[in-house]
Amino acid sequence: MNVILGGIEGGATHSKVVLYNGKGEKMAEVSGPATNHWVSGMSAVQEIIYNMVNEAKKEANIPQDEPLSALGLSLSGCEEEETNRQLQEGLERKYPNLSKSYVVTSDTVGSIAVAREFGGMALIAGTGSNCLLLNPDGSVHRSGGWGHILGDEGGAWWISHKAMKVYFDDEDNYVRAPFNTDFVWEAIKRHFKVENRFELLQHCYSKFNKSYFAGLCKLLAGGAKTGDPLCLWLFSEAGRALASYVRALAPYAQPHLFPESGGLPVICVGSVWLSWEYLKPGFISRLQEPCVGKERPVEEVSLLTLTTTMATGAVYLAAKATNYDLPRDYSKNYKVFFHYKSNVINGE
Amino acid sequence: MNVILGGIEGGATHSKVVLYNGKGEKMAEVSGPATNHWVSGMSAVQEIIYNMVNEAKKEANIPQDEPLSALGLSLSGCEEEETNRQLQEGLERKYPNLSKSYVVTSDTVGSIAVAREFGGMALIAGTGSNCLLLNPDGSVHRSGGWGHILGDEGGAWWISHKAMKVYFDDEDNYVRAPFNTDFVWEAIKRHFKVENRFELLQHCYSKFNKSYFAGLCKLLAGGAKTGDPLCLWLFSEAGRALASYVRALAPYAQPHLFPESGGLPVICVGSVWLSWEYLKPGFISRLQEPCVGKERPVEEVSLLTLTTTMATGAVYLAAKATNYDLPRDYSKNYKVFFHYKSNVINGE
Repeated sequence: MNVILGGIEGGATHSKVVLYNGKGEKMAEVSGPATNHWVSGMSAVQEIIYNMVNEAKKEANIPQDEPLSALGLSLSGCEEEETNRQLQEGLERKYPNLSKSYVVTSDTVGSIAVAREFGGMALIAGTGSNCLLLNPDGSVHRSGGWGHILGDEGGAWWISHKAMKVYFDDEDNYVRAPFNTDFVWEAIKRHFKVENRFELLQHCYSKFNKSYFAGLCKLLAGGAKTGDPLCLWLFSEAGRALASYVRALAPYAQPHLFPESGGLPVICVGSVWLSWEYLKPGFISRLQEPCVGKERPVEEVSLLTLTTTMATGAVYLAAKATNYDLPRDYSKNYKVFFHYKSNVINGE
Repeated sequence: MNVILGGIEGGATHSKVVLYNGKGEKMAEVSGPATNHWVSGMSAVQEIIYNMVNEAKKEANIPQDEPLSALGLSLSGCEEEETNRQLQEGLERKYPNLSKSYVVTSDTVGSIAVAREFGGMALIAGTGSNCLLLNPDGSVHRSGGWGHILGDEGGAWWISHKAMKVYFDDEDNYVRAPFNTDFVWEAIKRHFKVENRFELLQHCYSKFNKSYFAGLCKLLAGGAKTGDPLCLWLFSEAGRALASYVRALAPYAQPHLFPESGGLPVICVGSVWLSWEYLKPGFISRLQEPCVGKERPVEEVSLLTLTTTMATGAVYLAAKATNYDLPRDYSKNYKVFFHYKSNVINGE
């Protein structure tokens, strides 16, 4: 029987599945809804995965009842062994023909796997945010990734929420906004289709939808583009928050993680990175801030963006777990968009 | 027919109804569940109100089908005219024998009404937080009261959440905690009955219960009592946040709001005030902070605690709305527990 390897990239907003044959050729790529089991529920996520893979099998002309050789799941929310095991066992029990074997990891691990064979740092800033350092010896260090109640700093929800909070506090005379709020308030009213602050409460509580809420961020990016000072400030604050993740985990990086030039490779994933231009001032200033207490300075960092779906990383992990030597060329999967070295800064 | 006036104090955790006869004598007092319609839903809150009043009627030996003369609803979440009207119309339609007339206001207004005839400031720090200034001419100024996603600074949920966030960020090497986190982490584990951070996620998301979450605050108050530095810091920060509300609204107070000695009367409501001793350092230091921009210094403030339920304030509002001169003695309804005058500080 032919080798068919599957991989899924799962986010809190949407997901993607890819299938590869044994020669390393992509056979199908299918998009689907969110697959974070903390948000959508374990059972619903299992069903979504099953349906997405079936759709991909169809696209690749593989019979529905022919199990994949292995399926890599690289999903937002899959940080914990116990619940990862539950996710896998549910798939095995409910859908015996889905795949012969599984690898379940967080989306951060998949995004590193697509770009680097021996590890790196993944810094996710999509709807939420998360940071993970994977060392060549397999050791892992984490910072963030706890969702919007406990963090998500620098993600689209966080930026959107911060915009709203700055406006509310300014109106309340509680904390004065650092800049004029007119553009931001117009963007909030437009995005949520409301006329006043009370009407926003439903979007924060009874009808809360994290992904929809985070959609405000796109309008704020538009504001930054036209030079609105508060929008520029919001993205710069997000840049600071993201650089804080790099500072948090860089001290744990093993030296042989970056034998080549470029320093620590940071794989940047998520739509917030599309606004890098506006994140950059805060990002750099935070990296350059003096160290406090036991902190160690960040010497050299390269920011990488993926040029292929990280579902491909999940495929690589599935291949590795089944000891299958899948042909692959990492250099085609990413490009470096920024390079920081102490006080030497290169990049867009 | 006899005059019977009802009043309800409604919070995000529990509620209380009282009935008074025309002589100003309390005839019944009944407790019940949360009645914040943003949290529990409009229809559920209407049913809870109906059931609570019926129970109180029973206690006062009033037939279920005899409507009250007037019912004052002083509820957390009732900040907006449009939804207040919906709440009232639903009660009138579904329960025609509940009451002949209604007054619907926020819990802040009810807490002022119980202590002062001509207005004052209400500063609520219960599960959530909220601040309102009611002037003698009826004009109203607000700060906060937008719920845990948008504020609630200084409330029990906010203190509990801040404790958890400080611990998470410290563990993540993201932001170092200002003090040792051992006591706080033990308190978190004990309150939520968990062993690790992952198990806490359900309490933040899928099984989120604001009131249960906020219950951690009681253990933190215990920690402050035994001198744990991080707990003391958390309450001091809450004190700062609460003083920021006073600073936010004090500039709008009309001078004839406080003709007597004591300065601006601030009616302090909610269980967090039980920890005043630990709030106090931050509260005072924030009041004394230099003014920035258009800010004006807070000259003189008296903090009042109610000695009767603010459901009684709702009764007073119901009486006023129906032009009924209910006998009442405000001085029996509160006591002053702290007095601040520029740099003269008196009180416990």
